[in-house]
Amino acid sequence: MVGYDPYIKAIEDLLNHQKVITSGMKKEADRCRAAIGQAKAGNVVSLVSSGDAGVYGMAGLAMEMAAADNETIEMEVIPGVTAANSAAALMGAPLMLDSATISLSDLLVPWEMIVKRLEAVAVADLVVSLYNPRSKKRVMQLEEAVRIFSEQRPGTTPVGVATAVGDDTEHLILTDLDHLLDQEVGMRSIVIIGNTTTRIIDGRMVTPRGYYK
Amino acid sequence: MVGYDPYIKAIEDLLNHQKVITSGMKKEADRCRAAIGQAKAGNVVSLVSSGDAGVYGMAGLAMEMAAADNETIEMEVIPGVTAANSAAALMGAPLMLDSATISLSDLLVPWEMIVKRLEAVAVADLVVSLYNPRSKKRVMQLEEAVRIFSEQRPGTTPVGVATAVGDDTEHLILTDLDHLLDQEVGMRSIVIIGNTTTRIIDGRMVTPRGYYK
Repeated sequence: MVGYDPYIKAIEDLLNHQKVITSGMKKEADRCRAAIGQAKAGNVVSLVSSGDAGVYGMAGLAMEMAAADNETIEMEVIPGVTAANSAAALMGAPLMLDSATISLSDLLVPWEMIVKRLEAVAVADLVVSLYNPRSKKRVMQLEEAVRIFSEQRPGTTPVGVATAVGDDTEHLILTDLDHLLDQEVGMRSIVIIGNTTTRIIDGRMVTPRGYYK
Repeated sequence: MVGYDPYIKAIEDLLNHQKVITSGMKKEADRCRAAIGQAKAGNVVSLVSSGDAGVYGMAGLAMEMAAADNETIEMEVIPGVTAANSAAALMGAPLMLDSATISLSDLLVPWEMIVKRLEAVAVADLVVSLYNPRSKKRVMQLEEAVRIFSEQRPGTTPVGVATAVGDDTEHLILTDLDHLLDQEVGMRSIVIIGNTTTRIIDGRMVTPRGYYK
């Protein structure tokens, strides 16, 4: 079992005889290297991600690194519930129809490309799930996102902020575009901005299905 | 338990004493109505969707219909693995970074809006997961999507087609934009079109994570 410390702690009661290799934040490449090394040595290895390992997770990195090492390793990706979907379930049903998923972290994608994507998605009236919306050091990106969406959608557009979903500290805020920046949004939050049809129905954020008359 | 016949069949071994109400295709509103009626009568009701009930599923419709009937019903959405994520896991890791999800069915969203979304997503170099890509009667939509993406991305852009994922008849095709229309794509397929960075690594479709050097 190879994983980020808190994720391995979260599945502790599923472990018994397995060898466990953990490491801290930003050590993704180290964990992949450890997993590949163990697999090369003939072991069956589980590389643990939170959410879905194929969405801002470890799956692609493991494949890239194995190929860079000229290692052909049998791999199976076991899909999971990605953070946008668990956040959406808490909010109501904001992702009923077409949507986009964009990370506001510019560690992996240049900021200019992220802006281009936010603008395209805003114009195309897609609901958007924002991953990594804000950290202590990184606050400008969410402000920019709000500015971009406010040019295309009313300030009353419903917005959900779900933080630490599935955890003891889980909490949900339903707000709107005009008030998003006043809310507590952090590293463990997912922000979902509705489109022009999204509304609050009985306290739930819903993007209505077109066919219901 | 309320659900579409094949979904209820799929979970048969989990059922014992529950009252089961099933119905056929395109009877979504009927099933929601039945579920709301049962809840009103004081029963705990499970309304079963495949994938994630909040993504082109039943969650939003149930909320809309309950509100339209002025019924305040306690509801919990249990998130699931949506079809794009299980399809992606089979292909490799095409959804590692930003992406969009668009249904090519114009039953719920006007075709002009779908075209606008496809164009925006193509220009913004987002990976896209296409739901309901083609049916026997509806073939023009996928042709149009291929035309739109081919204007922005090379014909060699990797494309995955995953059909009947999780079923006995599950199958996967890895192809490219130039050859997508020659493939078997149907009602139970998810099509994922890569962006300009997506590539085939060791037989897997991967959108590389930027941070791996």
